[in-house]
Amino acid sequence: MKIFALPGNTLLARNITRHLGAELGAFTVRHFPDGESYVRLLCDVEGQQAVVVCTLFQPDDKILPLYYLSRLLKDSGAQSVTLVAPYLAYMRQDKVFNPGEAVTSEYFAALLSSAVDRLITIDPHLHRHVSMSEIYTIPCKAIHAAQLVSDWIRQNVVNPVLIGPDSESEQWVSEVAAKAGAPFLILEKVRHGDHDVDVSKPVVEPYSNHTPVLVDDIISTAHTMIETVGHLRVAGMAAPVCIGVHPVFAGNAYDDLVGAGAAEVVSCNTIQHSSNRIDVSELLATAISE
Amino acid sequence: MKIFALPGNTLLARNITRHLGAELGAFTVRHFPDGESYVRLLCDVEGQQAVVVCTLFQPDDKILPLYYLSRLLKDSGAQSVTLVAPYLAYMRQDKVFNPGEAVTSEYFAALLSSAVDRLITIDPHLHRHVSMSEIYTIPCKAIHAAQLVSDWIRQNVVNPVLIGPDSESEQWVSEVAAKAGAPFLILEKVRHGDHDVDVSKPVVEPYSNHTPVLVDDIISTAHTMIETVGHLRVAGMAAPVCIGVHPVFAGNAYDDLVGAGAAEVVSCNTIQHSSNRIDVSELLATAISE
Repeated sequence: MKIFALPGNTLLARNITRHLGAELGAFTVRHFPDGESYVRLLCDVEGQQAVVVCTLFQPDDKILPLYYLSRLLKDSGAQSVTLVAPYLAYMRQDKVFNPGEAVTSEYFAALLSSAVDRLITIDPHLHRHVSMSEIYTIPCKAIHAAQLVSDWIRQNVVNPVLIGPDSESEQWVSEVAAKAGAPFLILEKVRHGDHDVDVSKPVVEPYSNHTPVLVDDIISTAHTMIETVGHLRVAGMAAPVCIGVHPVFAGNAYDDLVGAGAAEVVSCNTIQHSSNRIDVSELLATAISE
Repeated sequence: MKIFALPGNTLLARNITRHLGAELGAFTVRHFPDGESYVRLLCDVEGQQAVVVCTLFQPDDKILPLYYLSRLLKDSGAQSVTLVAPYLAYMRQDKVFNPGEAVTSEYFAALLSSAVDRLITIDPHLHRHVSMSEIYTIPCKAIHAAQLVSDWIRQNVVNPVLIGPDSESEQWVSEVAAKAGAPFLILEKVRHGDHDVDVSKPVVEPYSNHTPVLVDDIISTAHTMIETVGHLRVAGMAAPVCIGVHPVFAGNAYDDLVGAGAAEVVSCNTIQHSSNRIDVSELLATAISE
């Protein structure tokens, strides 16, 4: 087995490789001055399992290098190509909300399914679909970071109370809270558009001596978390610890969240980021070897 | 028939539409804050020919919106989807130059062929392949801008002499020169790498009263043209007119070429650019309607 780390995935891929006792595959990806990608394999993969690590945030300019490498591995004799995409893009447009919309979760799945043999991801944003197999035609494994997040909270936060930003998050937050042995609160929110979200003020009085912990699967614009941080401050609670499984952090979201008064911003290393504190590599290694 | 212009293709698509007496198709492409693309069709295409205009310079971040729109048009009942890519990417890595290299021209062709029914392009960079059908499985039409370039030279340059930057360009330059009724010279060059090119000093004396016209199919880094401009100046010739069919202009290439002493930089509108003087829309409209 050889593990191939596309740019931005080297730290995670190295950890996975260590857990598996496998080796990193040597290859080159670069861009020509005109923006075209160049891919060259520098090791033998004949008859071997190839694992490509490529997290898919900001996906649009990552897809061609990934497609090329996957095809090249197959053409070079790899027995199979597994894509490890700890963060999986295009899971949110999973139905036609307004007439004429492209259901990009299905189109993206079709494209990935044509390029690799198997997909492993972490906490994909499954809303209207129950499992990945409803959209992906290749075998998929969706693993969960809840236990790792709970362990981190238990080891690092004194007297925590978990805060879920909205009703969608209840299942996830209640699971993390139970595993961490902590209470939880779910807020209610009203979404007006991509950038405009209101969060109702929670009933926080019973938890005034607790450390609030905000948990979400994806932190993208962070608007919801930023608003919640403000509500908790107004309510007289301590500065919260903010945890996201996937630190997407669109634009200035990370700085804005820190500036809004988060005591600490913590994420899993599904996307390489300075907030990474929770290492998912062992979970991924286990899934790869199964 | 409806013509769909992806971002950056509106001017050309509008001209094509006018030549065909067709209409522009209404649709939206935008990006979410996390970099994912959103595509929505805002018109009826049931049973119609759909033509998507998307020139493919800097191709990597264009491929997903193009793929989504093409799939959406088919799923919305379009009878066929034709891609008009006046500049076609990934034509240069058309064989394994060094062991382990991905032949991206074939992989890219496979991806496009899975998304659209037909492809129309202008002067694709066919080196080792004789025709597009060796790499593309869908019907392709490669049309030639030579006549338009010749017409422009005849109408705009006094006493021209065509200069080809290297032996590869001879066929192309000699054709343009013949059509323009002008003499031509082919230089010799030695390529040391992507950024490092030498051009032999041409034998220019017989043409000291001519206006040199440098012509190439693609102007990307422009290094070759910039060197040639310098050689011609040293040889005492007039400042040359520089013409490229495809104004790719990687990085600062355009400013560098102007700064090197080009009298004028002229291109076809296969890629939208301030140097566009030669309109290919009628050629494309004819190819679409055939």
